Formats: sequence, structure tokens, C-alpha cells
Amino acid sequence: MDEKEVYNKALLDHLLLNNDIDKFREEFLSMHTYEQSEYFEDSDNEIHQKMYHLLSPKEVADFFDQLEIDDDEYEEIFDQMKVNYAANILEDMSYDNAVDIMNHLSKRKIATLLAIMDKNDAKEIKALMHYEEDTAGGIMTTEYISLKTTTPVKEGLLLVKEQAPEAETIYVIFAVNDDKQLVGVLSLRDLIVAENDDYIEDIMSERVVSVNVADDQEDVAQTMRDYDFIALPVVDYQDHLLGIITIDDILDVMDEEALEDYSGLAGVSDIDSTDDSIVKTASKRLPWLLILTFLGMITATILGSFEDTLEKVALLAAFIPIISGMSGNSGTQSLAVSVRNISTGEIENQSKFKITLREAGAGFLSGLVCAIVLFTIIMILYRTPLLGLIVGGSLTIAMTVGTIMGSIIPLIMNKLKIDPAVASGPFITTINDIVSMLIYFGLATSFMSYLT
Amino acid sequence: MDEKEVYNKALLDHLLLNNDIDKFREEFLSMHTYEQSEYFEDSDNEIHQKMYHLLSPKEVADFFDQLEIDDDEYEEIFDQMKVNYAANILEDMSYDNAVDIMNHLSKRKIATLLAIMDKNDAKEIKALMHYEEDTAGGIMTTEYISLKTTTPVKEGLLLVKEQAPEAETIYVIFAVNDDKQLVGVLSLRDLIVAENDDYIEDIMSERVVSVNVADDQEDVAQTMRDYDFIALPVVDYQDHLLGIITIDDILDVMDEEALEDYSGLAGVSDIDSTDDSIVKTASKRLPWLLILTFLGMITATILGSFEDTLEKVALLAAFIPIISGMSGNSGTQSLAVSVRNISTGEIENQSKFKITLREAGAGFLSGLVCAIVLFTIIMILYRTPLLGLIVGGSLTIAMTVGTIMGSIIPLIMNKLKIDPAVASGPFITTINDIVSMLIYFGLATSFMSYLT
Repeated sequence: MDEKEVYNKALLDHLLLNNDIDKFREEFLSMHTYEQSEYFEDSDNEIHQKMYHLLSPKEVADFFDQLEIDDDEYEEIFDQMKVNYAANILEDMSYDNAVDIMNHLSKRKIATLLAIMDKNDAKEIKALMHYEEDTAGGIMTTEYISLKTTTPVKEGLLLVKEQAPEAETIYVIFAVNDDKQLVGVLSLRDLIVAENDDYIEDIMSERVVSVNVADDQEDVAQTMRDYDFIALPVVDYQDHLLGIITIDDILDVMDEEALEDYSGLAGVSDIDSTDDSIVKTASKRLPWLLILTFLGMITATILGSFEDTLEKVALLAAFIPIISGMSGNSGTQSLAVSVRNISTGEIENQSKFKITLREAGAGFLSGLVCAIVLFTIIMILYRTPLLGLIVGGSLTIAMTVGTIMGSIIPLIMNKLKIDPAVASGPFITTINDIVSMLIYFGLATSFMSYLT
Repeated sequence: MDEKEVYNKALLDHLLLNNDIDKFREEFLSMHTYEQSEYFEDSDNEIHQKMYHLLSPKEVADFFDQLEIDDDEYEEIFDQMKVNYAANILEDMSYDNAVDIMNHLSKRKIATLLAIMDKNDAKEIKALMHYEEDTAGGIMTTEYISLKTTTPVKEGLLLVKEQAPEAETIYVIFAVNDDKQLVGVLSLRDLIVAENDDYIEDIMSERVVSVNVADDQEDVAQTMRDYDFIALPVVDYQDHLLGIITIDDILDVMDEEALEDYSGLAGVSDIDSTDDSIVKTASKRLPWLLILTFLGMITATILGSFEDTLEKVALLAAFIPIISGMSGNSGTQSLAVSVRNISTGEIENQSKFKITLREAGAGFLSGLVCAIVLFTIIMILYRTPLLGLIVGGSLTIAMTVGTIMGSIIPLIMNKLKIDPAVASGPFITTINDIVSMLIYFGLATSFMSYLT
């Protein structure tokens, strides 16, 4: 996909700046809403103002539903709009997307917008704003289609047709009882192929999988992926149907969560913006780097305390990077496996002790193999078996301990309800630096008398 | 989501082993196909054999569509089945899923199965097996609904109803001309709300976004996510409609690609299996670790050649881990950003030179800040300004170079059509080890006379 080809920016700009209203509207409105949103994102405020003049709030709302801009840009965009126009756009958007945007506006702005908005839309949006951003409640929308179990199929089809323009999806329909409790689910396909004298309760499936409004969005995504649903109902603790989550929202959640794991491993907080300044980029990465500098000083101080050993056998220093590096590498491998298993829930089914034991075994085994290779190379290059044994021995122990650390720290963090993705790569690596240097110089100092 | 609660394994096992056919079928068939597939995955061959006796091929096919097992387990499972039964299962599955499974069977087995199968199903499956696994063709299915542009709406609705049981989705309908070329798209929603005297060409949208059969699956996923589609048509170079890709397949692709990036950063090839033995786990991780051991020996050899310098100022060794570590950390951060931008296509829109320049600037700036902090600590602990300057200076240069390497290597790999996710974390880290040690000991040796 070459991003440049999806729409003709030069043409649209030209039409707008020459006030060629009809041509612009014809060209712009024939584009897919995603392409419209791309054009908006790639344009500046001057173009935006022209667009607000030529497009209705509903037309803007259609592509605002697909807007993907940095969270802190919404405030500016909405400040540059007449407040009535802004309120109209938000009430025409999907509730869940309107809420996402409004969560990034100032309290004062939110109050103003809600006051101007259509009463009913304002009520729905206000209700949705109460939920935490990363929960099922935070990503659901209330624009779903539900039918009572006692509705005849023919009437049901008419009701669906009636509610279709407002609904986020019409392909999954939820069946509720008189208390608005969720009791069944059916697809539009079921409704279409049903016999005309059936009732909803005859064709619905009673085995309905739902998520609780307080569930974490990562769990929701996992459920959706497992069951291959295109929409998932959200209920409260008494099984009342509160909203639905559609699969397009889940694509965004999956992307977000994968990014979180990935950034954690790399030790970067914000990986996405390619248009930040040098100072902004550096300041985003510095927090991690500074923490690691201080941790690194611990390693340096420990090594400094072995100055005597180092002075006597300077060659020992040559193997510092390989021992600390390999311990860090095996720790990162094990960390990655651990974080991944926690986030897919696979860890739940197994004994933590067994997992750690297997990691330790794997770390020892691969450490031993690498140590034998390293010993052989040292024998060839330096012909000092004792140095080879100390380096090889340290490598084996350091890799075993490194693997255990990489596997056990995320498990502990998970137990303490801290997201293990934060126990990120560089952190584990630096901890393993300290441990491996203690092992290496501990061993070397013990065998000192034989080395010199 | 507690995985243990989705179905009652003990009950099902009990019913099966006691040959309580009716109760087992009632309980099992009322479960969601995902839960059925989980039960199958968690059971051994004895249980599988019982299941094949009690369930029809169609009933097994329904949950085999959702099976998620290791690629190398399919062969065993299909060898333990009567070949007729196996062929019946495969012809009742979605074509794309059947193909995924058959790609992992032996050539001989495939030939046998295709010979027994229903001729039409065999033809469709054979055609799909020609496509590369990671392309649009490799993940598409041919079970879509298409209507001719000249079909009246009323007849269209009947045709959809007729084709519904076979189709992978009935919610997106493709419009084709007499040459089977894709010319439009409409949703079931459009068809339902249309006026009865309309024709398909009146209600379809002509702006149809499609992917080419040879497109990479990662690009397909990106298009799907951008446009919020639930099904995407796949065409050949003459715009003939060949198949569709549905959103549930894309969820798997996204997971796969995110996992690839993540594993690359950690230097693990297979991150997913929690039930491997110690030897298998170790042997999966060893290739990387061995490569890194050899690379590490380069660092060690370089350091060994500075033995004189080290003998005179042993304290220099204390700062080896922090300088190599920080250079590796900033390189990994920059690598992660680079890989991510390449995989989202964001890199296409920007000058590579500008990106590298910004990374270099950010690396220099954060290096300088860390260096000042480190210099201050060294002054307090050791009161040796020259050592502080050498360490600080090396840190700044090493972090700048490290950042440039992390950013530029993936770009070069991408240019050479190698997946940059393979330029993984440990590799960059080890390269940066070598470079940073050359810088550090180069500097230290130059200022040697002042240090002692």
C-alpha cells in the first residue's frame, strides 16, 4: 500500500483554495471516510476551516469516526471550531468515538458541549464517560440492536431495518427479556433465514458469551479473537445489557496492547510519532536512560571494588561484555516469553513453579553449550585453561540466573497487579549485569592465587 | 477470563469414557465451537478417537475451523483418523482453513485426501494451495457472495439467502460484471434498506478497495484496519474477483506480525509454546545465543588487545558495562521505533536522511545528559576529572553511534527486502558493544599518559 495513492491531496487543496464548492464536495464525498480522515490529518488549520464551511457536521462526523491523531491534538482542533458546529459533529459520531475525543478536551469545554448538544445524545455520552478508558465500558458503544424474546421474526426484521441507520452493527442482534437482561443472541443471518411464524426466542442462541463492563480491554480482545465474534455484548453484574463492542475497536486495542509489550521490551514510552523534534524525542527516551545510568553505576561500583583483582589479571576485563551481555540476552528471551504468556492468559493453566524450573533448566543448558564453545575459543587464543574455566563457569551460572530473573520478575509483577510489560528489556538486562559481574569477579577472586 | 471456566472437561471426559452417547452429544454440541476446539486441544488421542466415533465429520469440521495447534501436530492428528473421515472433515471446513491444515500434511497424504474428496471442493482447495502462505492469496477463501450488477434487489436478497449457509460472510456482497470483474461493493444492510425496484448497480458503491492476490498479508491487515472493513475482496491483475479475506483471519495475522516484531526484539524464534521440554526450549533459543557468543568473542578480542591500557588503569574496566550497556539500550530504543515505523508504513512518507539525522540528534542529546550525570557521580566517588571526561565522552559518542546504528540498520535491511524485525535487539546490542568498546579504549589509550 503506497499511502500517497489513496487520495489526491493537490487536487482537493486546489479546489478548496479556489472555493470551487461543488467540485470539492463531489470529489471529497465520493472518497471513503478513511481517505477523508487521512486528508484531514495531512492538512493544516487553514484547510480545516475551509472544510468546516463546505461540509455539514454530519459529513465531518462520518470521517471523524476514523480520525487517528495524537490525543493532545483534539483540544486544538475543537478550539478552532465554532462550539455549535463542534457539538453537532460529536452528536453525529458513534457514541464511543465521541467519548474518546471528549475525554481529551478540557472540563470546561466538555460542560459547554454537553449543554448545547441534543439532550438524548448528551445523556448517552455522559453515561459512557464514566467508564475507565481501558475497560470494556470505556470502549463500548450503546448503539446496538436488541429485540425482545417475544417479538415475532417478521416484526423483528422491520425493527432492525428501522434501527439500522443508527446502529454500529446490524449483523449481531441481542435478545433481552422484559427486565432488559441479556438472554440470547442471534445473527442477522439467523433472522433472514428464519421461518416467518417463529419468535425471536425460537431462533436465538441462549449460550451467549458476554463481558462485564469492568473487564480489562485486553481480556475483551482475547475473548473476541477466540470466539471469532464481530460484536460482543457488555453487561453489568445483574446481566443487564449496557452496550456492545465491535471488532473494529478490537483491532485498535490489539494494536495498542502489542505496542505496549513491544515498547516495554525496548524501553521506549512513545514509539509512534515520527514527526517529533529532536529535543522531544530525546526527552521521551531519557527517563529510562537515566534510570539505567544510575543502575549502571551500581555495576561500575561493584567492579571498582574488584580493582585489585583487575590490576593483577587485566585480561579478565576482556570478558566482561560477553558475560554480562549473554546473561542479559538470555534474560530478555525469557522475559519476552513470560510477558507474552501472561498477556495471552496461557500462564493461568500451568504451575508457576514448573515454568520457572523449565526456564532455569533451559538457561543452564544453553549456558553450558555457550560456555563450552567459549572455553574452546579461549584455549585456542590464550591457552589458559583456568581463565577458560572461570569465564565458562561464570557464563553458565550467569545465564542460568539471568533466565530465572527474566522469567520470575514478570510473574511477581503480575501477582502484584503491575503490568509486566513494564519490567522491560533494558531493566532486566541491567539487573543481570549486576548479578553476572558479582558471579564473575566472585569466582575470579576466589581462584586468584592460581591465576597469577 | 479464567480459561478453566469455559467448559467442563471432567464432565465431558466422564460422559465419553462411559459411552454416554446422547448426553455427550447434547452437552458438547451446545458448546460454542471455540470451546469445542479448546476441549479437543486439551485432550489426548484416546479422547479424540471417541469423539470421531460420536461426531459427524461436519460437526468436527465446525470446531476444526477454530483449532489453534502447533503446525507440526496436524500430521499426527490426521494420521490417527480414517482417511475418508478426514477428507469429509476437510471438505466441510472453510476452504481457507482446510488449506492451512493441508499445507502441513505430507505430499502423499494430500494427494490421497484430494482424490477421495468431493470433486468441486477438491478443485477449490487445490487452487488455493498454490498461493504463498503470507500473501493475500494464502489467507483468502473463495466462499464469498457475489451478485451481477444487473440483478434486481429482490432477486439479490433471495440469492443471498440461498448462498448464506456456504458463505464465510453474508454481510459484504461483491458486485461483478459479466466478465467476473469486480466493479462494486455493497453491504447486506444496503440490500435490506434498498427500494424493491432498484438494481444492484443502483445501490452498490463503485469505489471498491481491493487487494491483489500477491500482496503481503501485513499490508492487507493494514488496509483492513484503516478502512474498518469486515471483508476485503482479493483480485488478480485483471481485476477478476478471486476470493475474500474476512476480519477474523486478519486478527490472526495481526497477532502473528506483532509476535514476529516482538520475538525479533528479544531474539527468540518461537515464543508461544509453554509445554516444550527443557531441551526443546534450549535448542530453540541456542541459535541466537551461539551467534552472539561468537560476536561477543570479537568484543573480548578487541578488549584483550588493550591489555596494556587495562593493566595500567584497572579502574577503566569498571565502566565497561555501563558504556556498552547504554549504547545498546539507546540502540534498541531506536531500533524499535524504526521497525515499528517500517511495519506501519509511516516511513514511506518521510525522508530517510531526515529520520536518521533526528535519531542521531536525539542520541547525542540523551547521551550528553547521561554523560553529565555520570561525570558528576564519578567526580563525587573517585575525584578523577580526567577519568570522568573519558567515560562521559565515550558514553556520549557511543550512545550517538548506537542510536544511528539502531535506526539505520533496519532501513538498510528494508531496502534489501529483508524483514527488519530480524535485525533484532540482541544483534544490535552486540554490534554496539564492539563499537562502543573501540571508542572507549581508543579514547582511554590516547589519554593514557595523563591518566597514570
